[in-house]
Amino acid sequence: MQRIVVLAGGIGGARFLRGLMSAVPDTDITVIGNTGDDIHLFGLKVCPDLDTVMYTLGGGIHEEQGWGRAGESFAVKEELAAYGVGPEWFGLGDRDFATHIVRTQMLTAGYPLSAVTEALCARWKPGVRLLPMSDDRIETHVLIDDPDGDDGARKAVHFQEYWVRMRASVDAHAIVPVGAEQAKPAPGVLEAIAAADVVLFPPSNPVVSVGTILGVPGVREAVADAAAPVIGLSPIVGGAPVRGMADKVLAAVGVESTAAAVARHYGSGLLDGWLVDSVDGTAVAEVEEAGIRCRAVPLMMTDVEATAAMARAALALAEEVRA
Amino acid sequence: MQRIVVLAGGIGGARFLRGLMSAVPDTDITVIGNTGDDIHLFGLKVCPDLDTVMYTLGGGIHEEQGWGRAGESFAVKEELAAYGVGPEWFGLGDRDFATHIVRTQMLTAGYPLSAVTEALCARWKPGVRLLPMSDDRIETHVLIDDPDGDDGARKAVHFQEYWVRMRASVDAHAIVPVGAEQAKPAPGVLEAIAAADVVLFPPSNPVVSVGTILGVPGVREAVADAAAPVIGLSPIVGGAPVRGMADKVLAAVGVESTAAAVARHYGSGLLDGWLVDSVDGTAVAEVEEAGIRCRAVPLMMTDVEATAAMARAALALAEEVRA
Repeated sequence: MQRIVVLAGGIGGARFLRGLMSAVPDTDITVIGNTGDDIHLFGLKVCPDLDTVMYTLGGGIHEEQGWGRAGESFAVKEELAAYGVGPEWFGLGDRDFATHIVRTQMLTAGYPLSAVTEALCARWKPGVRLLPMSDDRIETHVLIDDPDGDDGARKAVHFQEYWVRMRASVDAHAIVPVGAEQAKPAPGVLEAIAAADVVLFPPSNPVVSVGTILGVPGVREAVADAAAPVIGLSPIVGGAPVRGMADKVLAAVGVESTAAAVARHYGSGLLDGWLVDSVDGTAVAEVEEAGIRCRAVPLMMTDVEATAAMARAALALAEEVRA
Repeated sequence: MQRIVVLAGGIGGARFLRGLMSAVPDTDITVIGNTGDDIHLFGLKVCPDLDTVMYTLGGGIHEEQGWGRAGESFAVKEELAAYGVGPEWFGLGDRDFATHIVRTQMLTAGYPLSAVTEALCARWKPGVRLLPMSDDRIETHVLIDDPDGDDGARKAVHFQEYWVRMRASVDAHAIVPVGAEQAKPAPGVLEAIAAADVVLFPPSNPVVSVGTILGVPGVREAVADAAAPVIGLSPIVGGAPVRGMADKVLAAVGVESTAAAVARHYGSGLLDGWLVDSVDGTAVAEVEEAGIRCRAVPLMMTDVEATAAMARAALALAEEVRA
């Protein structure tokens, strides 16, 4: 059975995975999930990207929203607000709270996040092996101007505060994965990459999703050294992110918001193949010049079938690279 | 202003307090709440008796049930069950969960339970000063026969497991307040008792509510030494507990389920006056023989007015004792 490893962020990664599983149903898929978005809220450990993958593949996701639970209610959040306990800008629903309560209870009891994730997945049966990138705490922080400080003063805010509360409305000067240097990949991560037949980067955020996973010491090297072809799908279509505000964090690392620039950012040391959207056909030559095989295909994940076609194109490019 | 100290358990204590506040609205009331019923569930610290007092006096109680929140929903509990995480026999609602989340977050941040309780009461404004009996962890356990053990084998279960899950359906051999010996009264407890004009024992459980509070080292002595009259109201009417299964835990400490036996159990060293129900008029002489002033009045807390009359009777008996 073909072994595919996918480095996944949240909504984009989860939706891509659904297409991939539809394209190749009998495949051994290991998902290495981003945990840099994790945040402690109300004393509970919240892992937004892992949960988005788990809920999406397990049939519990709020489909329109792309994150959180279907049929959600908000009694706990309303009560917390009545106690004056925030933040109010992070929308945790009652069903979602239960996941964080179970996770926090297990972590407090001493289980590593990878074991907790496996236990949660025993209920959701996502059909993939979902691994956190690391059992160690890594939190992405964003360096922004400090409006309350002196001229030129800056401050770091948690990624979720930048992304959800501020909606990336101010410039990001740097993206800092706090704790990454001391972190180790979770058990199974390096082994899965080494044993993979194909490694895929879904159209997830190249900086704060895939980039954060690659930033765990040893992961970038493992991907670069992998025998398997490494194929990515551009999250930038026609010069703008398909969803989210990826341009803001790309600017922070000095990368233009174009399909070709993101490919060069990953680099030929990492990527063997890159898919750009049909509207970015002119990028193909530029990417290939950088030593990365490139094809232009439709890259809008409008539904599962369109997404499955993207996955098939990525796997076809992998075979082309391998040949 | 008259200063009244009340040693309160859960439902009985909370309802009595509502009557007391109706009877003497402009009074300085300090409630010393039982925390022996406290339990850790799902990694959260739950304080059933403190919350029952807080919700009842703050207008958030489920009136018919006597505990928990009005207008409650159970999404979190259903999700926890879907994860296979129990216990399912303890009915925490979504609104109630928020209280335990806030409490646990503050405790984890290092605040003592007394400070946390004060913070929660800032929202509920119960109109009394609510103090936990102790900031230290004390958990009432109940010794029962172990059906899985050898003949005569016994095991200890948490009070909530005995009371809520087993509904006190088996005999209790002993009541063990685990942690009590090493515990200290919470800040303000001894001071409030010493400064009180009246100390009241509501018709709460004499063993696992009032008894547990008295078992915190220093509290029994403070009550015995108090300058103020100490007046109790019998939770036993006509030879049976008014509510709950108090007879089971009374038997465990070798006390008959009669109004007079409970008075003697407290003893004249502690009690100056005791109210029994009108149906227990024959107990008056027996209690007075034990050196405790006794009166028979209606003791059914059927509504706030009936309860207020009980409170007035208790305060009148205090004046009689004082004179």
